[in-house]
Amino acid sequence: MKDTTARGSRARSIQVIGIGAGSPEHVTAEAAAALAEVDVFLVADKGGAKDELVAVRRAICDRFVPAGHRYDFVTVPDPKRGPDTQRDSAQYAQGVHDWHSARTDAYVRIIEDMPEDAVVGFLVWGDPAFYDSTIRIVDAIGERIPTTVRVIPGISAFQTLAAAHGIVLHRVGEPVHVTTGRRLVQEWTRAEASGLTLGTVVVMLDGHLHCRELATTHPDTLIHWGAYVGMPQQVLRSGRLADVIDELAALRVRLREEHGWVMDVYALTPF
Amino acid sequence: MKDTTARGSRARSIQVIGIGAGSPEHVTAEAAAALAEVDVFLVADKGGAKDELVAVRRAICDRFVPAGHRYDFVTVPDPKRGPDTQRDSAQYAQGVHDWHSARTDAYVRIIEDMPEDAVVGFLVWGDPAFYDSTIRIVDAIGERIPTTVRVIPGISAFQTLAAAHGIVLHRVGEPVHVTTGRRLVQEWTRAEASGLTLGTVVVMLDGHLHCRELATTHPDTLIHWGAYVGMPQQVLRSGRLADVIDELAALRVRLREEHGWVMDVYALTPF
Repeated sequence: MKDTTARGSRARSIQVIGIGAGSPEHVTAEAAAALAEVDVFLVADKGGAKDELVAVRRAICDRFVPAGHRYDFVTVPDPKRGPDTQRDSAQYAQGVHDWHSARTDAYVRIIEDMPEDAVVGFLVWGDPAFYDSTIRIVDAIGERIPTTVRVIPGISAFQTLAAAHGIVLHRVGEPVHVTTGRRLVQEWTRAEASGLTLGTVVVMLDGHLHCRELATTHPDTLIHWGAYVGMPQQVLRSGRLADVIDELAALRVRLREEHGWVMDVYALTPF
Repeated sequence: MKDTTARGSRARSIQVIGIGAGSPEHVTAEAAAALAEVDVFLVADKGGAKDELVAVRRAICDRFVPAGHRYDFVTVPDPKRGPDTQRDSAQYAQGVHDWHSARTDAYVRIIEDMPEDAVVGFLVWGDPAFYDSTIRIVDAIGERIPTTVRVIPGISAFQTLAAAHGIVLHRVGEPVHVTTGRRLVQEWTRAEASGLTLGTVVVMLDGHLHCRELATTHPDTLIHWGAYVGMPQQVLRSGRLADVIDELAALRVRLREEHGWVMDVYALTPF
């Protein structure tokens, strides 16, 4: 609970609610109770095919908010981001920063137009603590207007992945490393060169299956992969990296064509 | 869902249910539904003060299992483990292996004494995918008797920690590394020597605040610490590592005296 209330002004109550990765079944009792307190949900509209994800959020509200409680659903157009595959790390961080500022501006304007006692809710896919910008944006909102913020954890996609495969992520006594597709190969090879075990490596935000680069050098690595985890269209694959990488690449293309979008996550266990 | 059913024998249905870290509020809709299907909950009794944790499990069943559904709660004495702070990594792995075997024996005997159609449930603190033995034990049970296994993810202690502090675990574009107290200092120093950023490091299973060793060499590291996260007696502290480490050490001793046990988790963000 953070409080940026200044004297004489009324703090806006903001709930950052982790709703899990895909399935309304992953909503916690705490998240369900928080949903019932929110007057206005702010949802970033990323446009296009991901409308399906907005629909999932609406379905979650319909299921968990009691019939007597009125709430609004305000879709906020998301500022455009440029393509980010070719940018270096500093440019990437700057790009993310600019994008967060633009989002913050949009949210502050909307919140200031609401009644002072309206409870604002952000529905966060997965867990707000992992690879999501909402807490940073809410912190930035709190620098402009007085707020009290409550964060509610949710089941992250990699947890849904592990449960669906029925696996433990850590090997006995070893670490679990959660990273992005962008960083995977460099981290893996540097760690190996220095005799460091990263343990099982969970890869998020990888639109390009960067693990392909490891399939030749580390063919015996075990991969547990999943797309749309927790959702009705969930697809799972696992196996020796060198054996399954071509199938995964083809499958990913096919799923994207079929559904209009694809969201996947995977775990690599070194051999 | 794993299935080790042999022809002609009836598979035992086993649910591995992540119940979150401490608060019944962290139970998901999926976990609540699974709780209502279980006929016999098997709970490892670690003896002594941790009886309190068994009590929390009972409270969760009382809250989420419908009044009409009868279930039993079978406490299985946990095999003794020796002290493990001084052992090397190979001895540690062997010790864990022996301990898992002894637990497996105990569980198989109990399950074989049940009616064949009884649904067996394991309540797992936090998430079954992180630093918990249940999935490995259930896999071992499946090698001895036919089973069908379903795993349900739960909120892990480090997620509760992050939400309670209102923080994002990853820094923009960077990884999150989850490890044990035993490995922390070696991994941190090796990564640094090789120019590798582990990102935010989450430390679990650390009964000795190994981060103290980093307080001199890396005084500006930011620590977010919590004990009994999610429970009514939750205690949180955060700050510059060098500034708070002595207070944390003293607090940990005091809490252990006061409650008879202490369970904590922390996240370190490099400066």
